[in-house]
Amino acid sequence: MKLKRPKVVLALSGGMDSSTLAGYYLNKGYEVHPIAFSYGSKHGKYEQECAFNVAADLGIEEIKLVELDFIGKLFNSALLKSGGDIPEGHYEDESMSKTVVPGRNTIFISILMGYAESIGADVIAAGVHAGDHHIYPDCREDFINAMALTVAEATEGAIRLEAPFIDYDKFDILKIGYAFKEPMKYELTRTCYKDQPLSCGKCGSCVERLEAFSRLNKTDPIEYER
Amino acid sequence: MKLKRPKVVLALSGGMDSSTLAGYYLNKGYEVHPIAFSYGSKHGKYEQECAFNVAADLGIEEIKLVELDFIGKLFNSALLKSGGDIPEGHYEDESMSKTVVPGRNTIFISILMGYAESIGADVIAAGVHAGDHHIYPDCREDFINAMALTVAEATEGAIRLEAPFIDYDKFDILKIGYAFKEPMKYELTRTCYKDQPLSCGKCGSCVERLEAFSRLNKTDPIEYER
Repeated sequence: MKLKRPKVVLALSGGMDSSTLAGYYLNKGYEVHPIAFSYGSKHGKYEQECAFNVAADLGIEEIKLVELDFIGKLFNSALLKSGGDIPEGHYEDESMSKTVVPGRNTIFISILMGYAESIGADVIAAGVHAGDHHIYPDCREDFINAMALTVAEATEGAIRLEAPFIDYDKFDILKIGYAFKEPMKYELTRTCYKDQPLSCGKCGSCVERLEAFSRLNKTDPIEYER
Repeated sequence: MKLKRPKVVLALSGGMDSSTLAGYYLNKGYEVHPIAFSYGSKHGKYEQECAFNVAADLGIEEIKLVELDFIGKLFNSALLKSGGDIPEGHYEDESMSKTVVPGRNTIFISILMGYAESIGADVIAAGVHAGDHHIYPDCREDFINAMALTVAEATEGAIRLEAPFIDYDKFDILKIGYAFKEPMKYELTRTCYKDQPLSCGKCGSCVERLEAFSRLNKTDPIEYER
């Protein structure tokens, strides 16, 4: 008897966190249905290319692109093309809060929920992790718990929101990804927030990634500007 | 001393419920910032025209149009151009559940939340009402409570989700709208789910509206096909 594989939907940005999340569910035996969101961010076009490359490498059959042009037009954030410069420095710095896109995770999870209902998926996976909590309210555990309840109510219990990396930082996530039977190929991922092909190595997102590789005594396989 | 008017964001569909909701907050002294959502529904183009007419009539300065094309492409529902025929009959009928658009209210409220944060609004108003509860899980009180908690967490308590019509049906909503100092002009609104200029009078949404006017001993001022 062949068992039906459970289905998970998730946002795949092509960064190291969401790529590892996709690998994590594949390794658990799930069918993975990613959405790449395009929302007017400065790094959007590089991100999407990585998302599609990662999905192809992981053997994921179908990845959907969802365009949310209104975010760039109506919302304020330094992360958006319509916003100010990306701050440099550490992720924990107050200046990085300029990169918060209002409501982003709530919007992504809501759309993932509608997609999950439409394709009969069992789980929505959110890639939030401990490194994000300080500056992004919609990455904290209290938010995820409230959103999980919202998903349960809206789908009459049919779909479950999970956030398996919520207590992990990028260092833990790398350890998970390297421990897969086929280790993650992090050379396919991209984490930088800036609007340039080469990762800058200086924005909070790059700094956090480089620190994680360094703690693991590994060299980050992607090329940096400096 | 001039007090700052509180700001509310809401989805304005041009139907009688959301139009009355906009009027309700204007009468409470709020600055009203509506979004008209375009999501590939069969009745979308007629709906948006009404939304803009209602906003203009109420003296609302700015209404934003948000296009959510992915809903029509990725989601399943008879309400969508991509879906089957709109069922006729009563709203409470099982057949009307085909018109549920997965996650619609969750998605709308999430986007309203990001917009509210971007413009410094105090309240998000949801136009859900008692007539919807039976078939739409994301119109029920338990859903609204969970979503209200989600909004509170995601915005660190800065924004409040309200649903003032949750215990009312279309009859109560009409009573409210006619009791305003300047009564609502329901001739500007449209409720039909079908893809035709004239309202059909036969889909669940039309039937519910006609019943509400009839209970109030008023004639619905819009023209119907039959």
